[in-house]
Amino acid sequence: MSARFPTGFSGNAVHAGIKQTAGKEDVAIVLSDRSAVGVGVYTQNLVCAAPVTFDRALTPSESIRAVVINSGIANACTSDRGDEDCAKMADLVAQACGLDSNQTLVLSTGVIGVHLPMDNIASGIRACAAKLGSDDDSLERTARGMMTTDTVPKLCGRDIQIDGVDLNITGLAKGAAMIGPNMATMLSVVMTDANVAARDAHLALKDAVSETFNCISVDGHTSTNDTVLLLANGAAGGPMIEGRGLAAFRATLFEVCEDLAQSIPADGEGATHLVTVEVHGCRTRAEAVKIGKTIADSPLVKTAIAGADPNWGRVVSAAGYAGVPFNPQAVSLHINGMLVYERGAPIDFDAEAISKSMASEKETSLLLILDEGSAAARFWTTDLTAEYVRLNADYTT
Amino acid sequence: MSARFPTGFSGNAVHAGIKQTAGKEDVAIVLSDRSAVGVGVYTQNLVCAAPVTFDRALTPSESIRAVVINSGIANACTSDRGDEDCAKMADLVAQACGLDSNQTLVLSTGVIGVHLPMDNIASGIRACAAKLGSDDDSLERTARGMMTTDTVPKLCGRDIQIDGVDLNITGLAKGAAMIGPNMATMLSVVMTDANVAARDAHLALKDAVSETFNCISVDGHTSTNDTVLLLANGAAGGPMIEGRGLAAFRATLFEVCEDLAQSIPADGEGATHLVTVEVHGCRTRAEAVKIGKTIADSPLVKTAIAGADPNWGRVVSAAGYAGVPFNPQAVSLHINGMLVYERGAPIDFDAEAISKSMASEKETSLLLILDEGSAAARFWTTDLTAEYVRLNADYTT
Repeated sequence: MSARFPTGFSGNAVHAGIKQTAGKEDVAIVLSDRSAVGVGVYTQNLVCAAPVTFDRALTPSESIRAVVINSGIANACTSDRGDEDCAKMADLVAQACGLDSNQTLVLSTGVIGVHLPMDNIASGIRACAAKLGSDDDSLERTARGMMTTDTVPKLCGRDIQIDGVDLNITGLAKGAAMIGPNMATMLSVVMTDANVAARDAHLALKDAVSETFNCISVDGHTSTNDTVLLLANGAAGGPMIEGRGLAAFRATLFEVCEDLAQSIPADGEGATHLVTVEVHGCRTRAEAVKIGKTIADSPLVKTAIAGADPNWGRVVSAAGYAGVPFNPQAVSLHINGMLVYERGAPIDFDAEAISKSMASEKETSLLLILDEGSAAARFWTTDLTAEYVRLNADYTT
Repeated sequence: MSARFPTGFSGNAVHAGIKQTAGKEDVAIVLSDRSAVGVGVYTQNLVCAAPVTFDRALTPSESIRAVVINSGIANACTSDRGDEDCAKMADLVAQACGLDSNQTLVLSTGVIGVHLPMDNIASGIRACAAKLGSDDDSLERTARGMMTTDTVPKLCGRDIQIDGVDLNITGLAKGAAMIGPNMATMLSVVMTDANVAARDAHLALKDAVSETFNCISVDGHTSTNDTVLLLANGAAGGPMIEGRGLAAFRATLFEVCEDLAQSIPADGEGATHLVTVEVHGCRTRAEAVKIGKTIADSPLVKTAIAGADPNWGRVVSAAGYAGVPFNPQAVSLHINGMLVYERGAPIDFDAEAISKSMASEKETSLLLILDEGSAAARFWTTDLTAEYVRLNADYTT
């Protein structure tokens, strides 16, 4: 883990009074000291929040300087006034940091259908911009500024040398519920000092997201605000990254995205298990993802895991309704590495031993093997606990 | 309600020792005293149980005499031995009731992946067949014989006169979880003494199921055993029903299926609300169903309803990821008859009054109105409570 602000980046977060708990950061800014390539991947939800529309119009760009983030209110389903408030947030950052217009991207997360308290936002942005820092405390505070029901800030960084130049890629993410992947999931900002072309950065981000942020789920509910941004400011120096260097950059970006993506269901609301669903032996990766997502979203599978119950029938039957054709007589399943169902038939297995391992480990592994081809996919989800229900039956009106 | 055995039908159920609680009925038989038209609609789950394969091969038929049902074990994911056990069940009924082979349909429900205790099944079938009756007690006992985690037996009947002939349509159903519609959902047997052609009966059943049993959900998990059977034995007399008579028959069958279908989420595991999701203003009914199902399956919508929280943002955002194109600026939403979101914008509404109505009523109504066309659909689901989680985290290994 080398999570740090890459060269030229700084950040900060403050409590502006959007969240009700005093001291909890709810306005954050990430700033690059020079123009950065800025690319994004956004929610596919038709009902998308104002900042999603705003950022989509601005990216890809080669002159992004800042990202402003507020938590507590999502600025979603807020009609024209929501769009105006969002543009105002970008203007306030431009004023406070001395930027041109169109250099600031906006992220919001929190309650849907409520207008932003723009006075609080304005004073928050001014206070936040006045104390930007590039130390570890500032980085963690910035990550806290994105949090809603998250219990921990989510940070991941990697150092890598490409073409003799030392680079860093560091990302922040948030998310604990309303997690159901469809292109991008939840908020994440990934920063790098690499010198990478906008087109290459965009492709690298889209590819990484499709196998990481797009392969997680807490409750299968695709948010209105999902956004993953990548800012690359080239401050590390060196020529534009190409060829084998670009492959190394893409691999490292993938690692950062994968780590951040996993950290979301690992911190899922009420969750007691991070569940990895691996599906092998499919005709295509898309089919493997579809089966993995169907298993990951089944409340019956998720409650069984909460109860440390190796209830393989629920897993196999969920695969069966995924809408992917396969031969059910060729299906095998492993739970936590132990074979429980072999080529379409129940087998004797030590249910007590598996149950014990499920109860004692924080991670549960489901490995489903079909016999249709050689494509595979991984999907991450949570178990479903009474605590998730309690949190979501009581959270806001 | 005129739930009774139609002319020529009888039934019974006994405790055969499949369920662990002494006295709980787990083997049931429905018998017609003459050959009946028998048609079915079955689960679309690729991983389907032995009795689904068995019944699918037998129907449509014009010579069905009996349906045998066991609860406690689903005979799903049981490989070749499961198929043999299923055929054996039909043979045992044929012996006990003096039928030809191929006159008995089989239904099973319960735990997946466990083999049937065929000695118990055999003695149960003999005991059950020895005491068939056509009184109300026998009818209710037969319905109890299908139950798993259901808290009440599910029965619905209608009397109707067609072409001067008095007819009855009465159905039994079971189901409280693993309810996620895909063609047919859960077990139901509908009996009628109407004289109706196999082709007409099959079409009438398919049409009714698609808007009733196929529009309910408890947890979105399509079962391996879902089956709805219709038996029509013509014992009421009269000529084959056609034309306007057939329309009346279809309408009555629809009512019976709708009543039975609703009774399933109304008795959903841990549920405290039956939720009706109505979607209007769509281009096609299929699109309206897709949006309704997406809202109905969202854990965030379902937990909000459990908490009596008129959280319209969760409903609107669920519609947005259903995969159906629509203009989000034209969307309105009513909760329990009160407008909470109008043409893409939040409005002032009395949240406390709606919350109070949600807390005090056992039924919650969500009405989503789009502006794309004139098609509509209704979908029924449950809320999601901590009790559902408790039931399913602990149920069986």
